[in-house]
Amino acid sequence: MVYSERQASVLAAARKLAPVQAVLVTHPPDVRYLSGFTGSNAALCITAKAAVLITDGRYTTQARQECVGTRVIIASRAVPDEACIWLEKSRVTLCGYDAGITTVNALERMRKGISGKLRRKFFFPLAQTAAGLREIKERSELSQQQKAANLGCKVFEQMLGVIAPGMREIEVAAELEYRARSLGAEGMSFDTIVASGPRSALPHGRASMARLPRKGFVTLDFGVILGGYCSDMTRTVHLGRAGDAERKTYDAVLAAELAAIEAVHAGASCGEVDAAARDLLYKAKLAKWFTHSTGHGVGLEIHEGPRIARGQQQKLLPGMVITIEPGVYLPGKFGIRIEDMVEVTRSGCRIMTPAPKSWIEL
Amino acid sequence: MVYSERQASVLAAARKLAPVQAVLVTHPPDVRYLSGFTGSNAALCITAKAAVLITDGRYTTQARQECVGTRVIIASRAVPDEACIWLEKSRVTLCGYDAGITTVNALERMRKGISGKLRRKFFFPLAQTAAGLREIKERSELSQQQKAANLGCKVFEQMLGVIAPGMREIEVAAELEYRARSLGAEGMSFDTIVASGPRSALPHGRASMARLPRKGFVTLDFGVILGGYCSDMTRTVHLGRAGDAERKTYDAVLAAELAAIEAVHAGASCGEVDAAARDLLYKAKLAKWFTHSTGHGVGLEIHEGPRIARGQQQKLLPGMVITIEPGVYLPGKFGIRIEDMVEVTRSGCRIMTPAPKSWIEL
Repeated sequence: MVYSERQASVLAAARKLAPVQAVLVTHPPDVRYLSGFTGSNAALCITAKAAVLITDGRYTTQARQECVGTRVIIASRAVPDEACIWLEKSRVTLCGYDAGITTVNALERMRKGISGKLRRKFFFPLAQTAAGLREIKERSELSQQQKAANLGCKVFEQMLGVIAPGMREIEVAAELEYRARSLGAEGMSFDTIVASGPRSALPHGRASMARLPRKGFVTLDFGVILGGYCSDMTRTVHLGRAGDAERKTYDAVLAAELAAIEAVHAGASCGEVDAAARDLLYKAKLAKWFTHSTGHGVGLEIHEGPRIARGQQQKLLPGMVITIEPGVYLPGKFGIRIEDMVEVTRSGCRIMTPAPKSWIEL
Repeated sequence: MVYSERQASVLAAARKLAPVQAVLVTHPPDVRYLSGFTGSNAALCITAKAAVLITDGRYTTQARQECVGTRVIIASRAVPDEACIWLEKSRVTLCGYDAGITTVNALERMRKGISGKLRRKFFFPLAQTAAGLREIKERSELSQQQKAANLGCKVFEQMLGVIAPGMREIEVAAELEYRARSLGAEGMSFDTIVASGPRSALPHGRASMARLPRKGFVTLDFGVILGGYCSDMTRTVHLGRAGDAERKTYDAVLAAELAAIEAVHAGASCGEVDAAARDLLYKAKLAKWFTHSTGHGVGLEIHEGPRIARGQQQKLLPGMVITIEPGVYLPGKFGIRIEDMVEVTRSGCRIMTPAPKSWIEL
C-alpha cells in the first residue's frame, strides 16, 4: 500500500465515527507509517484533498528526502501551532486526533491554536489513528520484519558460542548488540534483557553487572530494528548440568509456548491463545508464576496491538505479527521464558524466529 | 535527598497550586526519581501520610528490591484502576496528576475508576509533578551523571583510533556502542547519530549504511546511561585534508559553543545563553543554518528542562545540568555540531565532558 492509500484509510476510518474533514497524526511511528518521515517531531494533517507533514527546521533536508508524495512544511513556530493554522486555512471545522497519544496539555495547547468560535468543538477524540491499520502487516512489511527476525536469530546463534560462566550480564549484552549492529541492525528494539541465575526470575531483568553463574539459567530477550521494523525473541539456556526441577519447568514452558502457537489462526480470539498457554501451565501447577500476558503485536513499535492476554475478545487476522512468550518465574530460584514472533495466517501461523528452542545446556 | 523528601517536595509544590490531598505520578522517570523503581508500568500515589507504588505482577520481586521506604502493591487489576481504589480508600477527594504526560484517554479512564459523585472534580491537572525538582541535580546525582559523562568521553577517545574512510556509519555506531557497553554502560541515551560527508548536514542523521568518505566530516552524537543517568555529547571530526570553508565553519561553531558556555551562570536566562551562540553565528553569516535550539537539560531522561532556546525566560540555577550544542548545517554540503554537558554553578559552569574539541583531522 502506498502512503496516500494508508492516509485515505485513516481518514475513512475516522469518518465512520464522526463527520471530521481532517485527521491530525502526531505519534512518530504513525507519522512514519503514513508518510515515510522518521523524525521525532512532526504533525501530519490529512484531509480528503491533501496531506501535509509539518516539522521543524532540524529536519528540513531529511523530511524532503523521506516524504515522497506528501507535502512538507517547515514550521516557523511550534509544530502544533503551525498545524492549527494549516487546518483552519483548509476550512476544516472538525478534526480527529489520537486521544490515546495526545496529552491533556497538548490538547489544551492545540485548542488555543484554533480561532475562538471554532475552538471548543474543533478536535474530535479518536481511540487511535493508524494503530488499527498497522496491526495488519502488508506484504512488504512482512518481508522487512522477517529480515529483522532473521537477523535476531543469527545473533542468538552466534551468542551460543559466546556465553560463558563468569561473564557479566552487561558484557553479554555488549557482545549481543555488537553482533546485531555489525549485521546491519539500526538499533535494538528495547533495552536488551540478560538475566542470569536467580535474576532470571525477574521477567524484565535488564542486563546488570551480575556475573553468569557456573550453573543456572540465562535468559536473553532482545530485538533488533531493521528498516524501521522491530524483531522480538527470547531464549533461555542453561549453564552447566541442570537439576530435575529446572529441566521439568523448562519442558512445561516450552509445551505452553508450543500450545499457544498451535492455537493461533485467523479468527481465534487473543484470549483463546493466552488460555492455551495458561491452561498447560495450570496443569503443571505453574500458572501462578506466569505473571504476565502471553504476547503482543510487534511492528514499527515493539509493543503494538493486539494484546494476547487473558479474556481479550479481539480476533486474530491474517497478516498480524504477534509474539508468543509465556514464562515461569520462581522468585529467588530461577525463571524461564521462551518467545517467538509469528505471522498469523488463514489456517494457522508461520514462525518468524526459527532459532533453536529445545533444551540447551552450555 | 532521600525518596521520602522528594515525595514530600512534590506534594508540597502541588499544594501551592490547589488543595490536593494526593499526587498521582505515572511517568516512569518521575516514578524512578521518587521511589527508586525502574520498571515501565507503575503508579506512585503520594499523600501526606503515605506513599504507595502500584505495579503489575511482572515486577513483584523487582519492585520490592528497589522501593526502599515506599510500600509496594501488586495490582490485581489494571494499575490505574488499582490506584483509584487506593486513593478513594485513603479519603482523597482531590488528586493532582501530570497533565503534560497523561493522555486524554488515560485521564478519561482514571476518572471512570472514581465513584460517581467524586469523579467529575477528582483530578487536578498539574503542568508537571517531579520535572521541576529533577532539573536541579543533587550531589549524588551530579556524581553519577559525571561518571556517565566520563564514560562517554572515554568512548569518544577510543573511537578516534577506529574511525576510517570506507567504514559504514552503522559499523561506527556498532563499535562505539560496544565500547560503551564494555565500559559498563547500561544502554545508550538515544539512537546513536553517526552522520558523515553530506549526511553530516542532517542534524539528526542516525547511523545509516552510508560509508565514511575519504574526505569530509563525521559527526558523532551519542550518550550512555549509567546508574540511570544519561550523558550527551557531540564531536565532529574531519577525515582527510579539509578546505578553507570547512575549517572556517568549524571555527565559527566552536567559537559559538565556547561563547554559550561562557554565558552560563546561575541567574542567567536560558534565552541569553542561546543568544550568545546565535549572535556569534550571525556575525559569521551562519545563523540561518543553525536550525535548532542551543541545548536542553539532561538527567534521568535525555531531554529534560530547562530548554536553552531563543527567548526562554527561565533562569539557570546551580545544580542544573544542561547541554550546549550549537551546529551549522549546509544542505548537500556538510554539517558541524559541537556539544558539551555542563553543570551550572553560582559563578559559571563546570564542563562535564572534557573530551578534545579543537579541530581534529584523521
